[in-house]
Amino acid sequence: MQRAAILGCAGYAGQETLDRVLGHPGLELVALGSDSLAGQPAAALDPRLNGSLPAFTSNAEAARSGADVIFLCLDNDAAAAFQPPAGTVVVDLAGAHRLTDDAEADAWYGTAPGAWSYGLPELFPPQGPLIANPGCYATAALLALVPLAGSISGAVVDAKSGVSGAGKSLKTSSHAGSVLENLSPYAVGAHRHAPEIAQQLGMPVCFVPHLLPVRRGLLATCYVQTDADARALLEAAYAASPVVRVLPEGATPELVRVQGTDAAEIGIFTDGATGTTIVICALDNLGKGAAGQAVQNANLALGLDETAGLRLTGVPV
Amino acid sequence: MQRAAILGCAGYAGQETLDRVLGHPGLELVALGSDSLAGQPAAALDPRLNGSLPAFTSNAEAARSGADVIFLCLDNDAAAAFQPPAGTVVVDLAGAHRLTDDAEADAWYGTAPGAWSYGLPELFPPQGPLIANPGCYATAALLALVPLAGSISGAVVDAKSGVSGAGKSLKTSSHAGSVLENLSPYAVGAHRHAPEIAQQLGMPVCFVPHLLPVRRGLLATCYVQTDADARALLEAAYAASPVVRVLPEGATPELVRVQGTDAAEIGIFTDGATGTTIVICALDNLGKGAAGQAVQNANLALGLDETAGLRLTGVPV
Amino acid sequence: MQRAAILGCAGYAGQETLDRVLGHPGLELVALGSDSLAGQPAAALDPRLNGSLPAFTSNAEAARSGADVIFLCLDNDAAAAFQPPAGTVVVDLAGAHRLTDDAEADAWYGTAPGAWSYGLPELFPPQGPLIANPGCYATAALLALVPLAGSISGAVVDAKSGVSGAGKSLKTSSHAGSVLENLSPYAVGAHRHAPEIAQQLGMPVCFVPHLLPVRRGLLATCYVQTDADARALLEAAYAASPVVRVLPEGATPELVRVQGTDAAEIGIFTDGATGTTIVICALDNLGKGAAGQAVQNANLALGLDETAGLRLTGVPV
Amino acid sequence: MQRAAILGCAGYAGQETLDRVLGHPGLELVALGSDSLAGQPAAALDPRLNGSLPAFTSNAEAARSGADVIFLCLDNDAAAAFQPPAGTVVVDLAGAHRLTDDAEADAWYGTAPGAWSYGLPELFPPQGPLIANPGCYATAALLALVPLAGSISGAVVDAKSGVSGAGKSLKTSSHAGSVLENLSPYAVGAHRHAPEIAQQLGMPVCFVPHLLPVRRGLLATCYVQTDADARALLEAAYAASPVVRVLPEGATPELVRVQGTDAAEIGIFTDGATGTTIVICALDNLGKGAAGQAVQNANLALGLDETAGLRLTGVPV
Repeated sequence: MQRAAILGCAGYAGQETLDRVLGHPGLELVALGSDSLAGQPAAALDPRLNGSLPAFTSNAEAARSGADVIFLCLDNDAAAAFQPPAGTVVVDLAGAHRLTDDAEADAWYGTAPGAWSYGLPELFPPQGPLIANPGCYATAALLALVPLAGSISGAVVDAKSGVSGAGKSLKTSSHAGSVLENLSPYAVGAHRHAPEIAQQLGMPVCFVPHLLPVRRGLLATCYVQTDADARALLEAAYAASPVVRVLPEGATPELVRVQGTDAAEIGIFTDGATGTTIVICALDNLGKGAAGQAVQNANLALGLDETAGLRLTGVPV
Repeated sequence: MQRAAILGCAGYAGQETLDRVLGHPGLELVALGSDSLAGQPAAALDPRLNGSLPAFTSNAEAARSGADVIFLCLDNDAAAAFQPPAGTVVVDLAGAHRLTDDAEADAWYGTAPGAWSYGLPELFPPQGPLIANPGCYATAALLALVPLAGSISGAVVDAKSGVSGAGKSLKTSSHAGSVLENLSPYAVGAHRHAPEIAQQLGMPVCFVPHLLPVRRGLLATCYVQTDADARALLEAAYAASPVVRVLPEGATPELVRVQGTDAAEIGIFTDGATGTTIVICALDNLGKGAAGQAVQNANLALGLDETAGLRLTGVPV
Repeated sequence: MQRAAILGCAGYAGQETLDRVLGHPGLELVALGSDSLAGQPAAALDPRLNGSLPAFTSNAEAARSGADVIFLCLDNDAAAAFQPPAGTVVVDLAGAHRLTDDAEADAWYGTAPGAWSYGLPELFPPQGPLIANPGCYATAALLALVPLAGSISGAVVDAKSGVSGAGKSLKTSSHAGSVLENLSPYAVGAHRHAPEIAQQLGMPVCFVPHLLPVRRGLLATCYVQTDADARALLEAAYAASPVVRVLPEGATPELVRVQGTDAAEIGIFTDGATGTTIVICALDNLGKGAAGQAVQNANLALGLDETAGLRLTGVPV
Repeated sequence: MQRAAILGCAGYAGQETLDRVLGHPGLELVALGSDSLAGQPAAALDPRLNGSLPAFTSNAEAARSGADVIFLCLDNDAAAAFQPPAGTVVVDLAGAHRLTDDAEADAWYGTAPGAWSYGLPELFPPQGPLIANPGCYATAALLALVPLAGSISGAVVDAKSGVSGAGKSLKTSSHAGSVLENLSPYAVGAHRHAPEIAQQLGMPVCFVPHLLPVRRGLLATCYVQTDADARALLEAAYAASPVVRVLPEGATPELVRVQGTDAAEIGIFTDGATGTTIVICALDNLGKGAAGQAVQNANLALGLDETAGLRLTGVPV
């Protein structure tokens, strides 16, 4: 068993990571960090957590727990300021270490890139112990587009996400009265996942996110012009993947089949009127878009089975 | 007072049209047609309807009521088969008379175009007494794109609609278990509002609709390449409109401000990474996307005030 | 035209009151008070508000506008501290003046009762210019139970409300991630609308509210033991009411028919197994449960038509 | 490994049962019955199902598969007509075999009781190989009330359920347009789970169900008069249960923590005004309310670990 610590456990990403670690056959939870819950028992976060778990400590104390792997579920600033203990695998679920260009990192996150590698296992396996876990939107867009990168010159990415993607912090846009029975585009043409997609795809895309009145789940509808056989390229890219499922012709990704899981679904279509290729990717923003991918990255860095601890089975309605 | 009859009153479009007619200062309801409710009192449709209204008759009988205006809220086949009484204004809320090309009309609706004119008042005022009321998606896309038509060569239209857009008929895709906490693209690259948009815009577009877990409301996010000043063109197009509101720079359309109304909102953005122009239009699929526009068209054809009976005021949260 | 001022216009109750005042044939809006929006134009609250409205002022300034009626849409503390200008009708939509017993008022609101009268027009018409507008839950429970008061000795009131009932302020329980696809009982057996119901009904009730994943609407399911003919009593109580609709036997109140309106619906049932009488009342927590009732109370106090400005017509789906 | 067959696999209960069987360490799936999908591969039900599963057969053929346990996920009539193969454990998830009184069974289901025993493991462990799996509402009400049965003389059970409780069949009340942003009481005072609760509790209760705008999850708010220490009785009843969790004082059950699981949560409160005891039980109508309990019953009848295959771990947000 390798030892795992979670910092920032009280947020959505933290709790979801905890969920995966608790069910992981190769990881043992040694520290539960949360500055807001420090000193309280695990059940203070959720009554489903029982007394055998360690109590919450401060994040700083959790970082010194001697863990083999640390999951950083902090906000961008705290993640940027974090000093990784030597010899420890660290997976950063925030955005602080995703952009490798100095100017871009500074512009979008106020950070300086360091020795972190981007880890999206199917496309960009992590290259060292310090791993920048991709953004949820970026994961969906890249899964849909990277296999086509050689044959396209741009893309429109129209994305829709459940509200947990915006985190637990209190803001008007996440108030239920703003979300229920509504749909709202936001950060139109200016969202920080756009430079992340561009960096990994090798070209800029036009990216617009929309906030859905659902708790979790994300769908990206991607539009490209290409002469290539998109279906063949995507099927080849994910033929061996236990995580990404390319749907058969005519089948459409939707949120219900990926919610609560660490899987992604891809559907491929050709527009009858314009010949545009439409690639749709669905995933759970808290699963493959956050905690599931973080555990998958950690597994690779620790030499464990890639899908250990992931939620990939089952067919709930 | 001019006399109005509604055929197909038991469906969503029928009930919403009834709602507008009941509040209309210049229309008097003379017949409530519904083959399923024929013989029953108005309250059989909704307990809010009181005893002073006419009872339901068959649609055929309602058509013979001598009305000055008939609102056809029937399915496509029944609308196609309808024989308009001479001298009567007829607004068809179905799709049967929207496509003017023989082959397109036959391919998408199995109908033959006739003497009907397309009526989208701000852009294409109706030309005679037989009026094809636009589709909800087409209305949103056309409001966003027609003022730019001279300066673009195509568009991606990514649209999202509440479930009432699919009507009251029972089908698996409208079952609440398929809709709640879900988002599903459908008819991807093959929806019959695409040829309608193309016909009125003068060029094909790539159109993908998505089903939202909301009862009503529709939002179309449109992506175009243009060198023109999109904001200037759109503001000029709707400067005098009491129905279409172009939002100031930075403001984003969302469903909540148009639900239950006959208004539309338009927001205009430029993508920071690619320069793509993004025009977003929100409306209520049952309001400006159906019944509200039908009454607006009828007002024009009958010589009444264009917005009489429309729901355009108020600021509910 | 009588002159109206709204204080606390930026909250849900304030905006809904504004909505009714703007459509009111006998009221002219003379001041829009909001400490958070003071100095900004009306459109800062909502782009649907146009330039002909007064700009926001502080609440204190709005109170000095010389209005004939002031709508207090403030929090409980600010409402308690408010000094009514002499000769002005004031309708307090907060809870500060609802409880008339010194100890109860102090215990639940930290306030002292004054010269305010409780105004629930169908049951307790306001007795003077200072009117305490009832709570949303209390309104539903009282409409269901007061006509039966002489024949019951208690009641269970199981109530369910949309999230706007909790106001716009940011708290974890109103975060969309806490509300969507969830149902949560709260303040179980200890909600401050319970003493309000008891005070007006003349006996204590067991009251439990639940937070629904809907934006607006409230339904109270009330259980009583009685030998009286509940249907006859309730039908008699509301026979002449333009606001409260007693449904025919077998018909069930639901949220959809009252949302966005100032009406209430009541259904009456007898339990087959135990003979318990079940009275269900549905209303919109922001309509009859807040702003609609406030305007109705103001109309009575000002000598206007009782339903002027209310949203009572229409049959939207 | 014991052999399992599922009949009626295409419905909600069938698919959820399949989900548990696929993850069950002691069960091997040998037949997938569905009259509507017979002849098609498993993936026809859900693209997550892969090629190693048996294809669908008719229900009749699945019944002849020689399984050790058959899960009947049929409608009431088909379940009533089913002839259990000798020596096979059969768990009936429909209602056909729940009522043991001839007149009640006939009145509510048109069936005659037979050699089936009611199986609610924590309270009424199954007594033989033919097991009537409890209704979802009945499960919640009984978990809340049976430990108190000796000290109460009746109860009000106000229950709220997600739409999957009504099954996949197409009806107006399950149409998304009837469910979204709505709440509707139904079968008020006349639901067939009422006699089921009465039978197992030993006294009639007043039961009213409400349809929630959520996909899954059920909450029953139960009101009783008792002098007993309800908390002590309930904690004692479930102290050893891995499935039913009694929450600490002040903590409130809600849907989010039980959705997608086979667990139940119970909260206990005393009403401050009337002394009424309020017991609230939350569970997933498709988990502990259907498929989870069916597998739990099967485990007991087959001599397997009681919770094998159940979804009881994890703390997803």
